[in-house]
Amino acid sequence: MTRIAVCAPATPITRDHADAAERLVESEFPEHSIHFHEQCFKSSGHFAGTDLERLEALVELANDPQYDAVWFAKGGYGSNRIAEAAIARMNAAARAKTYVGFSDMGYLLAALYRNGIGQPVHGSMPVSARSERGREAVRRVLRWFSGDGSGLEPSLDGSKPAVAFNLITLAMLTNTPMMPDLTGHVVMVEEVSEHLYSVDRLFFHLANTLPRVAGLRLGAVSDVPENYVEFGQEAEEIAKFWCDRAGILYLGRAEIGHTASNRIVPFGLASPSTAG
Amino acid sequence: MTRIAVCAPATPITRDHADAAERLVESEFPEHSIHFHEQCFKSSGHFAGTDLERLEALVELANDPQYDAVWFAKGGYGSNRIAEAAIARMNAAARAKTYVGFSDMGYLLAALYRNGIGQPVHGSMPVSARSERGREAVRRVLRWFSGDGSGLEPSLDGSKPAVAFNLITLAMLTNTPMMPDLTGHVVMVEEVSEHLYSVDRLFFHLANTLPRVAGLRLGAVSDVPENYVEFGQEAEEIAKFWCDRAGILYLGRAEIGHTASNRIVPFGLASPSTAG
Repeated sequence: MTRIAVCAPATPITRDHADAAERLVESEFPEHSIHFHEQCFKSSGHFAGTDLERLEALVELANDPQYDAVWFAKGGYGSNRIAEAAIARMNAAARAKTYVGFSDMGYLLAALYRNGIGQPVHGSMPVSARSERGREAVRRVLRWFSGDGSGLEPSLDGSKPAVAFNLITLAMLTNTPMMPDLTGHVVMVEEVSEHLYSVDRLFFHLANTLPRVAGLRLGAVSDVPENYVEFGQEAEEIAKFWCDRAGILYLGRAEIGHTASNRIVPFGLASPSTAG
Repeated sequence: MTRIAVCAPATPITRDHADAAERLVESEFPEHSIHFHEQCFKSSGHFAGTDLERLEALVELANDPQYDAVWFAKGGYGSNRIAEAAIARMNAAARAKTYVGFSDMGYLLAALYRNGIGQPVHGSMPVSARSERGREAVRRVLRWFSGDGSGLEPSLDGSKPAVAFNLITLAMLTNTPMMPDLTGHVVMVEEVSEHLYSVDRLFFHLANTLPRVAGLRLGAVSDVPENYVEFGQEAEEIAKFWCDRAGILYLGRAEIGHTASNRIVPFGLASPSTAG
């Protein structure tokens, strides 16, 4: 039984999104409960409310002992603006929680992981509950909350700590006060809607700034826009190229990304039993 | 009299671009000479030839004492892939040269500046010589080669060292072996064709990783694509927001960017007389 609370540290969802996720939990996972904070539906320019509104909602849910998990509603962009301030205000209840999300939520997962707060988890988000395919990704997380590890990224074998990030998010995190020490970690990265030259550029940055990681796995690189010229290397060739240059072991593909088959990656050496 | 050599460390130009630049020099700046390396017209996927071809051309021109300046033909993307290797092979002739370009060429300008090699200069490039408005930007550089400082960025007063970068380029450079020490520098940044959320994200990274700079100036943020929602802050508000958070002095606008009015910024404390 997991008591789940949802807030939106980046961009808003609609009531329809929340309703769909609530119905899914009620009908298929009655052992869990899910609560959507009103902040999820707020709007302030690009964001789900002002920085302060998003910060307050996140801190409120994280610090509330009546919830076991904070599930981030949606990515987009914006959690980086509140991550440091949120960490500074987290209490003992926050340290006992599981935090699930991905993409832009990587800023928060990173900051939580760096500060040893709770269990950060790369996983799909409630915003996906409205579509048939997305619902399966949401079920994967709900099953994991129930102790079912079938949705975990298949390469996870408990031998090495792992993390999973959106490529831009990780590049923007490097050397900031939110960046965890990834020495000895298997680092999985995925990207969406970026040109291949941009993917190459991001790998250039990571290859030059990542500490000695145990290896890299490439997730989905999806919805690559067409450019006026073919880049000349596919996404996996780019990843291998920069891993070779940096002396980073390339470990193959990972089943993560902005797709319905996005798998679960608990940060660190976590096992399925850490949830629920 | 400046003997100029041109290569293309990122993307190629056409013979028409080179012809236009040659005609401009012949007709209006007969005191200078300009030579285009054949590598400028090569093509390999996204790039103006393979990494090795671009590297060899750059090193050949930089190390050749018969030229006073290396003028980069065009930006695009790709100079980061050869910058470190090029620096490692530069000789005494390379150290006596002026290097002019901007945008993606920032990787090279940064690496040259970090290593104290020659005079790196933010300035427009030969690729612009075909259009009426672009030609004026090209003339600005050719006049500067002649010792005419009228094209310099207006805020440069010789009191503090300055640099100018494309925003993404600078973000990707941070903490790499190509990044110069910018302590005490006025840092000017410009961007093109990026969403405002991306501009915000890049400032997040810089605000968290830049050393104690003397201040920041914002150049043009042009051709911002339309997004599904207004971001809620204009580019200058974003720059001020992150400068405030980071304790960086915001010094106002700079006349640099992907526009015909792009001005010249010699890296460091250089004066107009360093050229030609």
